[in-house]
Amino acid sequence: MSLVECVPNFSEGRDPAKIDAIVEAVRSAGATVLDRSSDHDHHRSVITFAAPADIIGGAAFRAVRQAALSLDLRNHSGVHPRIGAADVVPFIPVRGVTLKDCARLAEATGRRIWEELGVPVYLYEAAALRPECRNLADIRRGRVPVPDFGGPSLHPTAGAVVVGARKFLIAFNVNLRTEDVDIARQIARTVRASSGGLPHVKAMGVYLASRNLAQVSMNLTDFEQTPIHRAFESVRAEAERMGVGIAGTEIIGLVPEKALEITAAWYLQMENFAPGIILENRLEGSRG
Amino acid sequence: MSLVECVPNFSEGRDPAKIDAIVEAVRSAGATVLDRSSDHDHHRSVITFAAPADIIGGAAFRAVRQAALSLDLRNHSGVHPRIGAADVVPFIPVRGVTLKDCARLAEATGRRIWEELGVPVYLYEAAALRPECRNLADIRRGRVPVPDFGGPSLHPTAGAVVVGARKFLIAFNVNLRTEDVDIARQIARTVRASSGGLPHVKAMGVYLASRNLAQVSMNLTDFEQTPIHRAFESVRAEAERMGVGIAGTEIIGLVPEKALEITAAWYLQMENFAPGIILENRLEGSRG
Repeated sequence: MSLVECVPNFSEGRDPAKIDAIVEAVRSAGATVLDRSSDHDHHRSVITFAAPADIIGGAAFRAVRQAALSLDLRNHSGVHPRIGAADVVPFIPVRGVTLKDCARLAEATGRRIWEELGVPVYLYEAAALRPECRNLADIRRGRVPVPDFGGPSLHPTAGAVVVGARKFLIAFNVNLRTEDVDIARQIARTVRASSGGLPHVKAMGVYLASRNLAQVSMNLTDFEQTPIHRAFESVRAEAERMGVGIAGTEIIGLVPEKALEITAAWYLQMENFAPGIILENRLEGSRG
Repeated sequence: MSLVECVPNFSEGRDPAKIDAIVEAVRSAGATVLDRSSDHDHHRSVITFAAPADIIGGAAFRAVRQAALSLDLRNHSGVHPRIGAADVVPFIPVRGVTLKDCARLAEATGRRIWEELGVPVYLYEAAALRPECRNLADIRRGRVPVPDFGGPSLHPTAGAVVVGARKFLIAFNVNLRTEDVDIARQIARTVRASSGGLPHVKAMGVYLASRNLAQVSMNLTDFEQTPIHRAFESVRAEAERMGVGIAGTEIIGLVPEKALEITAAWYLQMENFAPGIILENRLEGSRG
């Protein structure tokens, strides 16, 4: 069975009844809600849900429809930049689907949002049809005047929606046995892609006052290209060089089973690793 | 959703049609057949299947019934010791069920086999009601004259069935960068439970002619008490002490997802590991 995750952002973080109604719309389509979080200051909510590929698009559509019906951007105030009631809708492959499959899902769902709701749609990241739409930030800053579906004028109350596809993001933190945040920052600079480190790794050094220790906080944006173990071993090697040990690590949010399988197989030096040797995968056939 | 594995042995390894009929009986009950293997000399077949707890007992019953209908021990010749047409039927917890749950499943299935088929049943290992029935070998050697259900006389054509519950067994081999099998044997003696090593580990040293290397071949009989990584690191440490590197490892057969999760979490030094941080587990709720 295929599995796709969807993590839409909505411009409503204060009225629980309105967020409940969006969550209910997702559930009514047969998707499983994994998480929801709302922020009062940002006036924004994030809902995380998952479903097979044939269900996820309909669930996202119902959530966007519910948001368009109940939210009104004309009355909105919040510190987060936004362009719509349903603001960003990314589809993320988890099992048995490719990023390209998710890009097609995004396009079909985006077309339906415009045709049935009259809300214009931009397609971004892996679903982008135009290079200037790849980066969400460029769309937010108004650098792309005409949406992919509908427009150029926005919907009076619901604005526009940015729909797209991206890979699963793993938030992985490594706690160091030191309170010196400069060491964490130096390690972060060495391992992250932007300063010449590992591809698909974002990293920064932070100080955790509650534990009086420094942490390398990372986002792994493609765990098949740069697996968790490679990021971890790079941080460990840099820390060791500076005489600092590893206190422990943590995953923030969720991690796909596949990322842990890859990690276990690597540490165990497995010669014959394949998803099919895992009992649960054998039961589902198309997993992996 | 709960998941139980069942690995029954049948005293038929030569007539594919008879084995097909048993496999079909398992499938007709809604279980998933993961593997089947037959041995001509042993005149014996092993079928591996899995299903939720509420289905697995019925599937095992149908397989035993089909074996009792089509096999006749009076015409049997084979080198493997046996007491029945369906010989041994172990239930194995995989997810969301305990060993005790599986022992109860074994008892209920055993009672049904006696009541509906008239084939006497011994309950063994975790399902044993008497201490002398814990070891399968003791039952095979005829040391337990009276079955738990039915008997003392056996069924004329189907003999008796030994039904029970045990933990999942992981077959895990470590290949050494040496052709010296004595080194593999020495490591096996150090790590295995029977000579004072790790609990729940069986091990022997073997020589792999096809690759010209020595191997420590292990059975891990309780991967939650002695996880894969502990067995692996023990072998590695002993090998290192003798100046021998690890060429690689392999799993024979299947491994439960949970065993790889435990391994990944250990190597990554995860502070907050829980089955619930894995996306797929969150979807199924009761997994883990």
